[in-house]
Amino acid sequence: MLEIEKYNKALQVYLSEVVTIKEPIQLYEPIKYIVSLGGKRIRPVLTLMSCDFFETDFKKALPAALALELFHNFSLIHDDIMDEAPLRRGKETVHQKGDLNTGILSGDAMLILAYQLFEEYESEMFRDLAKLFSKTALQVCEGQQYDVDFETKNDVTIFDYIKMIDYKTAVLLGASMKMGAIVANASEECRTHSYEFGRNLGIAFQLQDDYLDCFGNPETFGKQIGGDIIANKKNFLYIKAFQNSNKRDKEILEKLFSEKPKDSTNKINVLLDIYKKSGATEEALNEISNYTRKANEILKELEISEENKKALLSFGEKLMNRKV
Amino acid sequence: MLEIEKYNKALQVYLSEVVTIKEPIQLYEPIKYIVSLGGKRIRPVLTLMSCDFFETDFKKALPAALALELFHNFSLIHDDIMDEAPLRRGKETVHQKGDLNTGILSGDAMLILAYQLFEEYESEMFRDLAKLFSKTALQVCEGQQYDVDFETKNDVTIFDYIKMIDYKTAVLLGASMKMGAIVANASEECRTHSYEFGRNLGIAFQLQDDYLDCFGNPETFGKQIGGDIIANKKNFLYIKAFQNSNKRDKEILEKLFSEKPKDSTNKINVLLDIYKKSGATEEALNEISNYTRKANEILKELEISEENKKALLSFGEKLMNRKV
Repeated sequence: MLEIEKYNKALQVYLSEVVTIKEPIQLYEPIKYIVSLGGKRIRPVLTLMSCDFFETDFKKALPAALALELFHNFSLIHDDIMDEAPLRRGKETVHQKGDLNTGILSGDAMLILAYQLFEEYESEMFRDLAKLFSKTALQVCEGQQYDVDFETKNDVTIFDYIKMIDYKTAVLLGASMKMGAIVANASEECRTHSYEFGRNLGIAFQLQDDYLDCFGNPETFGKQIGGDIIANKKNFLYIKAFQNSNKRDKEILEKLFSEKPKDSTNKINVLLDIYKKSGATEEALNEISNYTRKANEILKELEISEENKKALLSFGEKLMNRKV
Repeated sequence: MLEIEKYNKALQVYLSEVVTIKEPIQLYEPIKYIVSLGGKRIRPVLTLMSCDFFETDFKKALPAALALELFHNFSLIHDDIMDEAPLRRGKETVHQKGDLNTGILSGDAMLILAYQLFEEYESEMFRDLAKLFSKTALQVCEGQQYDVDFETKNDVTIFDYIKMIDYKTAVLLGASMKMGAIVANASEECRTHSYEFGRNLGIAFQLQDDYLDCFGNPETFGKQIGGDIIANKKNFLYIKAFQNSNKRDKEILEKLFSEKPKDSTNKINVLLDIYKKSGATEEALNEISNYTRKANEILKELEISEENKKALLSFGEKLMNRKV
């Protein structure tokens, strides 16, 4: 926990040096605003930690770490426009505070600023980092598009769904780990293992988000319980329950997901019952342990000290228990 | 003219190899769509020509040239959203054909695809190209923001205005020339001269656009005459006329630019009169020759053959006469 504090503190100092408000103010002020809203900083912390654990001064990884945080925030700004979301982290979203133009243009500038941060590294490293960044960023766009497509698709399979969350969320956690390994000049094998550790942890994390959306503790989850159900967002449990159900329950699922009642209590209760009796809930828990186990097995292969392995394992656990 | 055909043909072949429709189709189809609308391809042609004139196989510059064309089209997609434009090159704009999400997300992906094209080059060149690209792309965003800001600002100076068109339009033409020089491994001095040639030509081109908007030939200009006036867009002539006018004419200018009459004939006639009698028209023509002359003087310094200098000069002239 103290270690994470160390990374967060260094990131904060670096961020306030780099992300400043300059002319034209309407372009740069929203960038400062969104990064100031905070958040868990999971991606940059993973990068700094990964670099540190490969026995390299973690401060060397600060530009790469901040690039990932800027990219993440860029995607939040543009996603919030697409989702017409008024709030982000309890505060107004960028396009809500300003307007559509502000959101589009500041987001664009943020993506470019992220690339510029890699200029802090020499040519070979710059190339490795920028290449990984581009590949990942494009996958995130593809994941977002799949997510949009799925809203109007009735035959989404579990395979499709896992691919979507892999692209939309998990690959960026993989890239965060790998960038730390690149900055530390770790071997190709270590880079791959770092990537796969982050990625599998990312899938586990997102699936757990789906589970907690249904069965989480409102006090620790941080989001509204049943949020996906209220928004008719087909997550792992819905897709699995639909797949496992008989004709009658399939019809109920479809009907409920075509409605948005003012009071969702009954809708949520009926759906949670079907999720449970269809075995979807159990299968979700199984998949979460599968991906977590995969991540931890890859961790064993990493050429870092046992102590650092334990620290990564513990970070993963805290992340899964929403205690980061 | 035949030379330009050569570049355009090679670009077209390369473009159709690189820009393909793949899954998710909703993300990649709009990218193919916008680049298929054509346009003059000024930026990539400048890159290929510049590389060619430094005695290097121009095909080596194809990835950089296409990156610039993709970036230009990315900015068109996002600008069209901000301007709520229904048409682009006589066809539906991307967000009009699809929706807001399509426009935002496909634009984002296009910017990333542009960066990926630099991966075709070895590390040092990759770094030089990507660095120039990021710097330029950020200036284009800043230029667009200034342009938006100026809409509601009444004290825009000629200095502010030139800076805006420099960032929004000219630096990208400068970067197009410079990228050709980078790929050709030209000296630092040649790179700078190439950049400044393109940039000054770009400012001249944009100022001439302002002039032609008022006094162009409808058959060769390609846009509606008086378009800026109808849209209350303060271009060089408006700002200059306002600066030069007496109190009474200032009031007329302000009043007319606060209205959007159904029939703009009278509004246009009154404004053109003020533009002429205030000397704004003449000063615009002067500035156009100043920047064109600057570009041509820089051209003299370029270490390329006399024949190639003539070809660049002639390309510049054709561009200014809207014959490219």
